[in-house]
Amino acid sequence: MTRTLIKNLAPLPAGTVTVAGWVETVRDQKKVQFVVLRDESGALQLVNPATRELGEDADDAQRAALAITEAISGLAHGTMVRVTGELKHDERVKLGGLEVKIAELEVVSEALPETPIADDSSLDKRLDWRFLDLRRPEAALIFRIQTTFEHALRTYWVDRDFIEIHTPKLMASASESRAELFELEYFEGKAYLSQSPQFFKQMAQPAGFGRVFEIAPAFRADPSFTSRHATEFTSIDAEFSWIDSHEDVMAMHEELLAAAFTAVVEKHGAEIEALFGVELSVPTLPFPRIPLAEAHEIVKAGGYEVPRTDGDLDPEGERRLSAHVKETYGHDFVFVTDYASGIRPFYHMRHEGDAGLTNSYDLLYNGTEISTGAQREHRVEVLIEQAREKGLEPEELEFYLDFFRYGVPPHGGFGMGLARVLMLMLGLGSIRETTYLFRGPTRLLP
Amino acid sequence: MTRTLIKNLAPLPAGTVTVAGWVETVRDQKKVQFVVLRDESGALQLVNPATRELGEDADDAQRAALAITEAISGLAHGTMVRVTGELKHDERVKLGGLEVKIAELEVVSEALPETPIADDSSLDKRLDWRFLDLRRPEAALIFRIQTTFEHALRTYWVDRDFIEIHTPKLMASASESRAELFELEYFEGKAYLSQSPQFFKQMAQPAGFGRVFEIAPAFRADPSFTSRHATEFTSIDAEFSWIDSHEDVMAMHEELLAAAFTAVVEKHGAEIEALFGVELSVPTLPFPRIPLAEAHEIVKAGGYEVPRTDGDLDPEGERRLSAHVKETYGHDFVFVTDYASGIRPFYHMRHEGDAGLTNSYDLLYNGTEISTGAQREHRVEVLIEQAREKGLEPEELEFYLDFFRYGVPPHGGFGMGLARVLMLMLGLGSIRETTYLFRGPTRLLP
Repeated sequence: MTRTLIKNLAPLPAGTVTVAGWVETVRDQKKVQFVVLRDESGALQLVNPATRELGEDADDAQRAALAITEAISGLAHGTMVRVTGELKHDERVKLGGLEVKIAELEVVSEALPETPIADDSSLDKRLDWRFLDLRRPEAALIFRIQTTFEHALRTYWVDRDFIEIHTPKLMASASESRAELFELEYFEGKAYLSQSPQFFKQMAQPAGFGRVFEIAPAFRADPSFTSRHATEFTSIDAEFSWIDSHEDVMAMHEELLAAAFTAVVEKHGAEIEALFGVELSVPTLPFPRIPLAEAHEIVKAGGYEVPRTDGDLDPEGERRLSAHVKETYGHDFVFVTDYASGIRPFYHMRHEGDAGLTNSYDLLYNGTEISTGAQREHRVEVLIEQAREKGLEPEELEFYLDFFRYGVPPHGGFGMGLARVLMLMLGLGSIRETTYLFRGPTRLLP
Repeated sequence: MTRTLIKNLAPLPAGTVTVAGWVETVRDQKKVQFVVLRDESGALQLVNPATRELGEDADDAQRAALAITEAISGLAHGTMVRVTGELKHDERVKLGGLEVKIAELEVVSEALPETPIADDSSLDKRLDWRFLDLRRPEAALIFRIQTTFEHALRTYWVDRDFIEIHTPKLMASASESRAELFELEYFEGKAYLSQSPQFFKQMAQPAGFGRVFEIAPAFRADPSFTSRHATEFTSIDAEFSWIDSHEDVMAMHEELLAAAFTAVVEKHGAEIEALFGVELSVPTLPFPRIPLAEAHEIVKAGGYEVPRTDGDLDPEGERRLSAHVKETYGHDFVFVTDYASGIRPFYHMRHEGDAGLTNSYDLLYNGTEISTGAQREHRVEVLIEQAREKGLEPEELEFYLDFFRYGVPPHGGFGMGLARVLMLMLGLGSIRETTYLFRGPTRLLP
């Protein structure tokens, strides 16, 4: 008999159904047994009137009933079973007002009786057993939200004629900083893992693609252990031509996020509130914009002195700025704009008439940076000058500089961390929770 | 004035417009100049009545006209320009029946006068200058098709409650063969680049995700230089639970491809015929299925002896089988099923009662393999046995084997190479043409 997903049972009439999933709990009472079965769509109560012993005149049906009772008594948590039985609608059943009375039970795959993690296990221990940790309904919901979020991003872009590209992750040189670069043996030479698709999404502009996007892994040999960093993460990237300034990038960025949040709220809003206690709403447009210099003043006026000397905000400064924006504008997002050239990469375009500032922004969401965007410098001689100034050797960048020598339109774009957005959306404490399999300096397994 | 894409000009009335793109050709006649301007959406003829010299009583307008004329004479191929002028509909103009008479011309980004590649450049040379090569309308179309194809795949899956996952590309051990593995320094130890998401998409099954997909890079340290291999490629992967056999996987796979081909034919069918001379159609369902043993007989009956001793088909055998299928069933696709265990990985499930055959298939399209699919072995003791038989150390696979010890549903899936599908769809000779930036043993640049 065809399997029915648990979420599809409610509209069915009473009658025979087949369900399949894993055993969440067993309540093995003397006269009656209850099993909570969970599948990818929900949870269901199964019931079985226990047959504990056979009379001398037991028939086949009674023997089968005894076998089912004993099988249920032996079910370990997590065991995969397929069950056929009678669906009954019963309002008294807390779990969705439904119950299935077991007629046949097949143990498809047994679980070891001792589950290695429990509800109070540490995050690190849960990550050791991530495939069991992901069975929690909250964890599964995170990745259903991820699916909806990404599909909405891509749909927004596809509807606007963006081209999806897959840039190579194997490179001949660094694209960002040499300090956080993974190096590998590549046949007779060396290769490096891409830290971002920056150079190659820019390449699409002289290539005449107009507008491109990519959602793909990026790699940073970053030895830090914060809740916001990973050695491998999913980067959401867009880049497009014929912009006038970073304002055009921000305008697309905020519209894109509003579209994606709309999809998530519509599809998962109620579940997010039920499982995470978060009342998610669609951000209003435009997002507030605050120049970095002004952001510093706001944070300082709030009584906090950012302990960095390079002019950037620190995490506490970001939190305080976001709190101020929330209080003043009622907004969860804020674009911090016009970063100083000293703390931006060489390829950010600088202000016309003030080389100390860049046409760039960071996007903060609920107190944490999720994205950096900018207009790029497309004039090759200026680009070379800026690279030199940052201590880079233009000779090593020749392949990249060539992109700017045969005609290139003004362009810009952004990169955004998927796991960070989800972490902040759901009020979670670490990107380890919103990454399918986290990778850090001491974590390569499972 | 706001830029209008060239493809959006046709419905506009005569009047002032601004367009921007790169110079494809300049025809610099004495009395009149023609420029073909191309942008991401199409090509347009610009016209300028030449002003070659100024009279003694020249006014500002005449001086401006001279400046435009001289600017046009100096335009190198590829230069990015922004032009404002008068749009005129004129049926005599071959290029779309449109012309813009230049009023203002801004050179936004100059190109070096010597373009390093030409129409007759070798593929290898074109790849050296890929960002210029991609300006060809055929090349741009490939990636617009890619965009439509992938979006249709994901939409099919999202509509059916598949979850999108991002599996890590950094691994502690090999997932396929140790022979084609990239190794890197990872802090104090070693890591390996993922050859496929196999283990981790399977992990989603005991995790209770039900159905998952991923489109992401995969890496093979494959020293071969064929038209079908790369060291980095985009892998399209799906995996789902509660299947009865590989037949369930094939049924999803063919439905998925029909959906994606439908989207491509609808959106790009006419352009594909115009630029590639290919009349693309949507494949009918079901695709033909031929067991491998029978495929060998067909090829042999056609007069070809496959020169391999391991029982697999070779590329010529695949071409001949596909030609037979095309002739017999009129179909471009064929599932070759029931591969021998000896030529399949340890995780493929074997036939019940005949361990020599697997519940697996290869999918051939227009004569070449594009995908491998299978039901997976989910019984841990059988899996360990099969791993041992292949010479693998179960101790090295512990993290993977754990996935099968706490309850796992029967499951299966496939992996499919994106660039191969596009190459075969468009009748191209190499995946280098359908990969944004190809990576091979001797190619890491640009």
